[in-house]
Amino acid sequence: LGSCFYPSAGDCLRVILASKSPRRKEICGLMGLDVTVYPSTFAEDLDHGAFSSPQSYAAANAAHKAAEVARGALGAGGDDESSTCPPAADVVIGADTIVDLDGVILEKPANHDDAVSMLSRMSGRCHAVHTGVAIFTRRAGPAEPVAHFVESTKVKFAPLSRSEIDSYVASGEPMDKAGGYGIQGLGGMFVESIEGCYFNVMGLPMHHLSKVLAQLDANRQIV
Amino acid sequence: LGSCFYPSAGDCLRVILASKSPRRKEICGLMGLDVTVYPSTFAEDLDHGAFSSPQSYAAANAAHKAAEVARGALGAGGDDESSTCPPAADVVIGADTIVDLDGVILEKPANHDDAVSMLSRMSGRCHAVHTGVAIFTRRAGPAEPVAHFVESTKVKFAPLSRSEIDSYVASGEPMDKAGGYGIQGLGGMFVESIEGCYFNVMGLPMHHLSKVLAQLDANRQIV
Repeated sequence: LGSCFYPSAGDCLRVILASKSPRRKEICGLMGLDVTVYPSTFAEDLDHGAFSSPQSYAAANAAHKAAEVARGALGAGGDDESSTCPPAADVVIGADTIVDLDGVILEKPANHDDAVSMLSRMSGRCHAVHTGVAIFTRRAGPAEPVAHFVESTKVKFAPLSRSEIDSYVASGEPMDKAGGYGIQGLGGMFVESIEGCYFNVMGLPMHHLSKVLAQLDANRQIV
Repeated sequence: LGSCFYPSAGDCLRVILASKSPRRKEICGLMGLDVTVYPSTFAEDLDHGAFSSPQSYAAANAAHKAAEVARGALGAGGDDESSTCPPAADVVIGADTIVDLDGVILEKPANHDDAVSMLSRMSGRCHAVHTGVAIFTRRAGPAEPVAHFVESTKVKFAPLSRSEIDSYVASGEPMDKAGGYGIQGLGGMFVESIEGCYFNVMGLPMHHLSKVLAQLDANRQIV
């Protein structure tokens, strides 16, 4: 294995993605990882104000999500086949993606009006997208993540008219996405340019994650 | 219609994409354009040395591809149903994507060794991806494109080992892609970061194209 490419090793690894985002599953597929999706039930209700930065908030969410699933998948109960416990796994990956507009955290819009409000504030401006990633492995156990990081990408939005925002919100696309837009869909039209990892904006920083997994594998920290 | 969003108008427009790239068709789909694919037979054998820049080379290729299809689709023969003539259309879009490594143009690799050579040269360095786009419309006719532009994105590649390059080339992914990689596939793992439009690297600059189409529509230059 090289420094950033993680090819065939994925075939025999049992990887759980502790997220219900279809975009994250898709990115894992592009990486050659055949993941099992097992979302956590973590409420994502941490107090924004308790964190020193939007980045640390995303990191904490990712760690909470992955830790909950790791306790079942990597712990003693990991071979339990009951439906309330995740299947046994070698790796559990958790992630959380937020939009950071001048230090204010934007998550999934609560409703139609919230989505319109978010997009209106983002119109014609730059924001950052932070994805926190936490990785647990069978070898290291469910107590602490064996690796965690936050990847950030800068995104420049075009100036949007109210009718563009209304049409976009009416499409339904914003509702399950941090900041109220999907770069890999209709929302891609709003994005003038980005600086950084595109896949990070979609929800999972492909290059960074593949590098970390390759490093863990090289260090025999996975299995 | 707003400045960059081109929603429902796509439903009734007959758009031909003069390219066989499945990625370009996918991007048109994201934009809400239901395009008919009709690749040109243009040989793409222009002399690199005859152009003042890689950008102007990409622009010329896009114009040649679209012009050939536009002559059939927008001209007198546009309603001919024979298999040698494209169907009648309102808009014909042509595009060409090249990789520019310090001014040297890289197109699709000729073979396995060529792909290995390209990727070795790109390893650990930045390159630019230029996509030329040319648009013809029924209203303006097939003589000249009604709009054309070149969009450029900077891409930073991770340092790649020889074994990573070999594994990647063996996957087959590089062979039909400019510069020998696909950012939307396994090749995405090689990309540390980009500056600019992601979809441009995939083959069609979504934001720029949607803005131009919306402008043409607003000016009643399409139908």
